[in-house]
Amino acid sequence: MADKIPTRIYLSEEEMPKFWYNLRADMKEKPDPILHPGTLKPVTPEDLAPVFCRELIKQELDDTTRLIPIPDGIQEFYGAFRPSPLIRAYYLEKILDTPAEIYYKFEGTNTSGSHKLNSAAAQAYYAKEEGLTSLTTETGAGQWGTALAMACGFYDLALTVYMVKVSSEQKPYRKALMEAYGARLIPSPSNTTEAGKKILAKDPDTGGSLGCAISEAVETAVKTDKCRYVLGSVLNHVLLHQSVIGLETKTALDKYGIKPDIIIGCAGGGSNLGGLIAPFMGEKLAGKSNARFIAVEPASCPSFTRGRYAYDFGDTAQTTPLIRMMTIGSGYIPSPNHAGGLRFHGMSSIMSKLYKDGYLEARSEVQTEVFDAAIKFMKAEGILPAPESSHAIKGAIDEALICKKTGEKKVILFGLSGTGFMDMTAYMAYNNKTMSDHIPSDEELQKGFASLPDIPQNR
Amino acid sequence: MADKIPTRIYLSEEEMPKFWYNLRADMKEKPDPILHPGTLKPVTPEDLAPVFCRELIKQELDDTTRLIPIPDGIQEFYGAFRPSPLIRAYYLEKILDTPAEIYYKFEGTNTSGSHKLNSAAAQAYYAKEEGLTSLTTETGAGQWGTALAMACGFYDLALTVYMVKVSSEQKPYRKALMEAYGARLIPSPSNTTEAGKKILAKDPDTGGSLGCAISEAVETAVKTDKCRYVLGSVLNHVLLHQSVIGLETKTALDKYGIKPDIIIGCAGGGSNLGGLIAPFMGEKLAGKSNARFIAVEPASCPSFTRGRYAYDFGDTAQTTPLIRMMTIGSGYIPSPNHAGGLRFHGMSSIMSKLYKDGYLEARSEVQTEVFDAAIKFMKAEGILPAPESSHAIKGAIDEALICKKTGEKKVILFGLSGTGFMDMTAYMAYNNKTMSDHIPSDEELQKGFASLPDIPQNR
Repeated sequence: MADKIPTRIYLSEEEMPKFWYNLRADMKEKPDPILHPGTLKPVTPEDLAPVFCRELIKQELDDTTRLIPIPDGIQEFYGAFRPSPLIRAYYLEKILDTPAEIYYKFEGTNTSGSHKLNSAAAQAYYAKEEGLTSLTTETGAGQWGTALAMACGFYDLALTVYMVKVSSEQKPYRKALMEAYGARLIPSPSNTTEAGKKILAKDPDTGGSLGCAISEAVETAVKTDKCRYVLGSVLNHVLLHQSVIGLETKTALDKYGIKPDIIIGCAGGGSNLGGLIAPFMGEKLAGKSNARFIAVEPASCPSFTRGRYAYDFGDTAQTTPLIRMMTIGSGYIPSPNHAGGLRFHGMSSIMSKLYKDGYLEARSEVQTEVFDAAIKFMKAEGILPAPESSHAIKGAIDEALICKKTGEKKVILFGLSGTGFMDMTAYMAYNNKTMSDHIPSDEELQKGFASLPDIPQNR
Repeated sequence: MADKIPTRIYLSEEEMPKFWYNLRADMKEKPDPILHPGTLKPVTPEDLAPVFCRELIKQELDDTTRLIPIPDGIQEFYGAFRPSPLIRAYYLEKILDTPAEIYYKFEGTNTSGSHKLNSAAAQAYYAKEEGLTSLTTETGAGQWGTALAMACGFYDLALTVYMVKVSSEQKPYRKALMEAYGARLIPSPSNTTEAGKKILAKDPDTGGSLGCAISEAVETAVKTDKCRYVLGSVLNHVLLHQSVIGLETKTALDKYGIKPDIIIGCAGGGSNLGGLIAPFMGEKLAGKSNARFIAVEPASCPSFTRGRYAYDFGDTAQTTPLIRMMTIGSGYIPSPNHAGGLRFHGMSSIMSKLYKDGYLEARSEVQTEVFDAAIKFMKAEGILPAPESSHAIKGAIDEALICKKTGEKKVILFGLSGTGFMDMTAYMAYNNKTMSDHIPSDEELQKGFASLPDIPQNR
């Protein structure tokens, strides 16, 4: 069988998913509801309406509909960059000398360089359908901002991106790429919002933070006619859109009768991990699979491996609704890390619940070892991985090396969520051996936990 | 028929080319022979042996063998990044509102970001087979150096890259990428060679030039045991390896019964253009096709459109063998241009001969208009094109707009030779409207022509 499997498996246009898969519908134990931070009651669609698009709110709160149709207008855009290839890592297997079969789903072939475009496409489409004319968002590392700039370019929507100031200075190329797609980039904090002005008055030289950028983006959306705010990870509707990754992967594997034994994803907010594992986890929840699921996160921001399952805010300014999730506290400030997309204090409530209930394992890795794995991978497979995605590579290599010891011919699947073309400073630091690792002390984590809201469920 | 053609056509592994196609074998009028610069007689394999690999010399001088087998060891590496997709530009067609069908062969899906890897793979393989342990080369824009670094990483060869000093300072990310693959990067001119020392003694602050980097790379290769020099464009064997682009394209189009009416490529040294058009030009030479072939070059370096068909050196130091080609003279210094890969004074002798004999058309374009086309393309198709490749996009859009006027449903094929991820400074200049155009005056070109060697065939 093995020698018949091509290096790359592509689906035909007919084989592409026509529905997203809502994993929550198949969870007997659902994630806890999102709470209004004032009333501590479950949020209603009306609570969210000033900030988010109507259809996205509906998807966010729907934990019973299994399959949600992908509108034709989104399928059309997906056709511009999907299907993504499922690749058999023959070259990596050879270098590792492992009996394991390794597969990876490569989401970096589009110009935004990552899986983020799957949800950006959907969110921009719904905004357009609803008659909106513009969107706001924030971006740190820049992958989400780029993806949304592409999607807004496609659907002809204006876009304002609040980019963390220090990030916009460090990553001028990211900024240029978003601007080339027509987005308006504002380094945050800025004088365009009250939130920004307040922070600048206190500290005119601040480099900004994701929390502050979120506050500015939300404020602008609420104040602007026919404008809403959109977010690229953590939320349920984002994971729903990302299920296209796992659905394509499963269709491709099924064609060749391949059943993965171990499925691995990197984890920041959980959107790429959740998207990849969704249909496979559905089988496990139904008792039809014994696959293991492994989330790999940075040691410097260990939401799964050292976090608490608690209600927490999504932003550092503590203005968002409360989500019950694995978190190290919205007040925790992770040390600088080259995998900027994984530096978030919390985790998708769906992934958190599955972890809590024992369906999902997690491990954390330091960045130099993650880059060791990245270099090994790129020399074998010829693809430059994003620092974020390299966490999954590290996990896959470790599992393949265990197979080498035990002689087991396991099938390992991992998500290669993006490319590292915009992360060359990280590779330079690695080449020059100036890259360092940080594992937070228990005292550092305590400071984060101290920021958790003092509400009944957290006690 | 049209609605059955998928957005992306991929070949199966069985459909991949097993032979390269040597277009010269089908040319009744062959390109003139390469001359030894001292004797002015055709070069012999012995003349070239100290500098180039044996098998590559054989390929360089062979103008009669039509099909040359791709060794298994190269097919194996090709499998890591080929086939490349042939894409139907449905989204671009829609935006242009043209009745034309537009297809492009996208060579940028590998990490080196361009078609250069097709020849780098072959050249590194033959070097390894010959028992060499290291290679040298030069790089300007960096695409070739990156491709060769990847190939040497794959075949486990040491590689020294002389990178034009100003380019290595302006493109630290390119440098980092090559180093991540294990290459040794030396900014040129350097103290590691006599050629470099001589130039530094004269001008310690020089930013270097491609001509100087070539001299250093050749000197090091000749002086080092089990080491040879390799080159990424212009030469016949490079075009031979690049024929894989056209062969894949033709197989993909043939599957759907599609015959291109117009085939367009960007032209620097001619390797991407020559590779794409080879099998289609073979049909035209045999009288089996009426397709038009168009080379698009930068107005700032107009080898085809304003050059002379003459014997010239390949380097500014005037040390290489003499090649009869379209050239504006090795002494011509093109103005800075964001399409660094197209800033070469000469052109492949095969492409030059076809142009001279009327089989190939050419046009030149200024860079701001090329970037206008690039932005239009990226918004529609979602791919960030390299500045070089964007010349072909400009050509394709112009032809599609002519079809819009005439109502003709022509089939346009162009080569998208690479991505622009390492060229964001160019996009920044475009976004900021600081990009300028330069069309050389006749006087400027005269300076270049004055550098042509004074030999009988040039008079």
